[in-house]
Amino acid sequence: MKAIIHEGKLGVAGLSYRDFEEVQPQAGEVKVKLKIAGLNHRDLFVLNRHQPSDPPLIIGSDGAGIIEAVGKGVANVNVGDEVLINPGIGWKEKTDAPPQGFEILGHPFHGTFAEYVVIPSENVVPKPEYLTWEEAGVLSLAALTAYRALFTRGRIQSEMKVLIPGIGSGVATFLLQFAKAVGATVYVTSRSPEKCQMALELGADKAINSNEDWSKALGREKMDLVIECVGAATFNKSLDQLRPGGTIVTFGASAGDEVQLNLRTFFYGQLNLLGSTMGSAEEYKEMLEFIKVHKIKPVVDQIYPLDQFDKAFERIETASQLGKIGFSIM
Amino acid sequence: MKAIIHEGKLGVAGLSYRDFEEVQPQAGEVKVKLKIAGLNHRDLFVLNRHQPSDPPLIIGSDGAGIIEAVGKGVANVNVGDEVLINPGIGWKEKTDAPPQGFEILGHPFHGTFAEYVVIPSENVVPKPEYLTWEEAGVLSLAALTAYRALFTRGRIQSEMKVLIPGIGSGVATFLLQFAKAVGATVYVTSRSPEKCQMALELGADKAINSNEDWSKALGREKMDLVIECVGAATFNKSLDQLRPGGTIVTFGASAGDEVQLNLRTFFYGQLNLLGSTMGSAEEYKEMLEFIKVHKIKPVVDQIYPLDQFDKAFERIETASQLGKIGFSIM
Repeated sequence: MKAIIHEGKLGVAGLSYRDFEEVQPQAGEVKVKLKIAGLNHRDLFVLNRHQPSDPPLIIGSDGAGIIEAVGKGVANVNVGDEVLINPGIGWKEKTDAPPQGFEILGHPFHGTFAEYVVIPSENVVPKPEYLTWEEAGVLSLAALTAYRALFTRGRIQSEMKVLIPGIGSGVATFLLQFAKAVGATVYVTSRSPEKCQMALELGADKAINSNEDWSKALGREKMDLVIECVGAATFNKSLDQLRPGGTIVTFGASAGDEVQLNLRTFFYGQLNLLGSTMGSAEEYKEMLEFIKVHKIKPVVDQIYPLDQFDKAFERIETASQLGKIGFSIM
Repeated sequence: MKAIIHEGKLGVAGLSYRDFEEVQPQAGEVKVKLKIAGLNHRDLFVLNRHQPSDPPLIIGSDGAGIIEAVGKGVANVNVGDEVLINPGIGWKEKTDAPPQGFEILGHPFHGTFAEYVVIPSENVVPKPEYLTWEEAGVLSLAALTAYRALFTRGRIQSEMKVLIPGIGSGVATFLLQFAKAVGATVYVTSRSPEKCQMALELGADKAINSNEDWSKALGREKMDLVIECVGAATFNKSLDQLRPGGTIVTFGASAGDEVQLNLRTFFYGQLNLLGSTMGSAEEYKEMLEFIKVHKIKPVVDQIYPLDQFDKAFERIETASQLGKIGFSIM
């Protein structure tokens, strides 16, 4: 089969589109013929974590497709079923942290940027009918990350004021859609007028240019909740917008991960800083229920053929996308 | 009446022991004849917050004594009752942050380092009989701060492993006593062998010299909860000891309040950082119930006559105390 392989060199330089050996499902596993795979920031990180001395790896965490074969003892799906993939391997219940051994598809296990992927059968769920293949294929990792950050960690409520700095990424876009579906008042920031515009179209109550004075732009409204994935560039500005007793959930640091924190301001404000990454299978199911009820669809930026991976990676590296980038697999 | 007054100069230089006008209780207030007042780190901060241009101020937050007079409409106490003072003014329910207007006795309102104090009647509760006057007079602020940090914020459970860096202060000593009463496993750190020894006598499972390698000293046991009041000197060492999904509660920064935080380590670890200060009247009542059930007594370091305030302030400034410092008021 054809796949995007990382081998021999760190970074994008180690990528190629080439033939790779197909495998068959073992007991408890299924083989999925992929129709769409989704690109994530995580795929960029993997290119620097997967070492030149490691065996060749099929990268990619997200995907949707059709069950091609099932291993012994698989009861939840049948050949021909249309499925969505939960890329989290080994985290079942909604616990405060994943258990030892938790991994995400695409490193160290082979991932979804390929014609086929073999995974545990518990990692596939029926594709929601209202989603196109493109929407289904780019959904999982970002929507699950957003769900855990906003619901399990941030405990969002309808009466809350929520700030999402750095709108535009897949996760941030889901955060906005989920928070509006709950009924919260949602503010977003971006350096890009296009991303601000998109956010307003998705229902944001206000979209602020990141370079503005946030306090002024927010009319001195203080936030119950900030969901922060930018990192160093915005972290302290985000903290400043919290009301006393407010919560900031951090799940990303694309603009730097080392921040300065004033503990005294923090504890006098009775503030909360909560770290979040990914989510469990339980949260994945809750997330799917939630998006089905609210008919939430991912914002799809662009879909590339698998062999044009270099264009897709350039787009995500330069943060040019509005929503999710995907690959179509023929 | 005699009182310790702060006026005219910042810091300890602005303190004197002198006559000050007595006032009578208004509607809803009580006048307490103090027997013991308790010294807190907060009293040190107040000396730099209360400006030379401000009117003279009686400092002091903690105290216990006998009801001398009651204003109109006071129904919860009578003249002659032995009472303890909750120094938090205007924070009733256990909310995530105090309401606007919340203040602590001793700044901006006149405090307890005096023969008499006039306060809202809701701020006095019956003195628990098993406590001496000395123990009752030094209890409130530290025990309330410890209670909120450990229970409301840290949600301590009996099966938890808890680390308390910088044992020796009043709050830290209560944290240790409360956590042991719950049944938790408790580790403490201090630079002082005497403080480590005291902690072991109070039931600490292990007392570590702060300069040791904490990971080694803890036998690589990871903590569910760290309650941190030291600040910059220990903050990152404390973070390193948390298990994935663990919680650090911060309520003090005696050794510096600016810290460097790595967001990526924080969110991959699904960690929680929760700020805490003081507590509400609801928590004050819960705390009193808790200490009565477990017969917890404050560790009393030294009791000075009120006119020897300079010795008491020197002792707390140099962190020489083991437990609480108090004043006896004749």
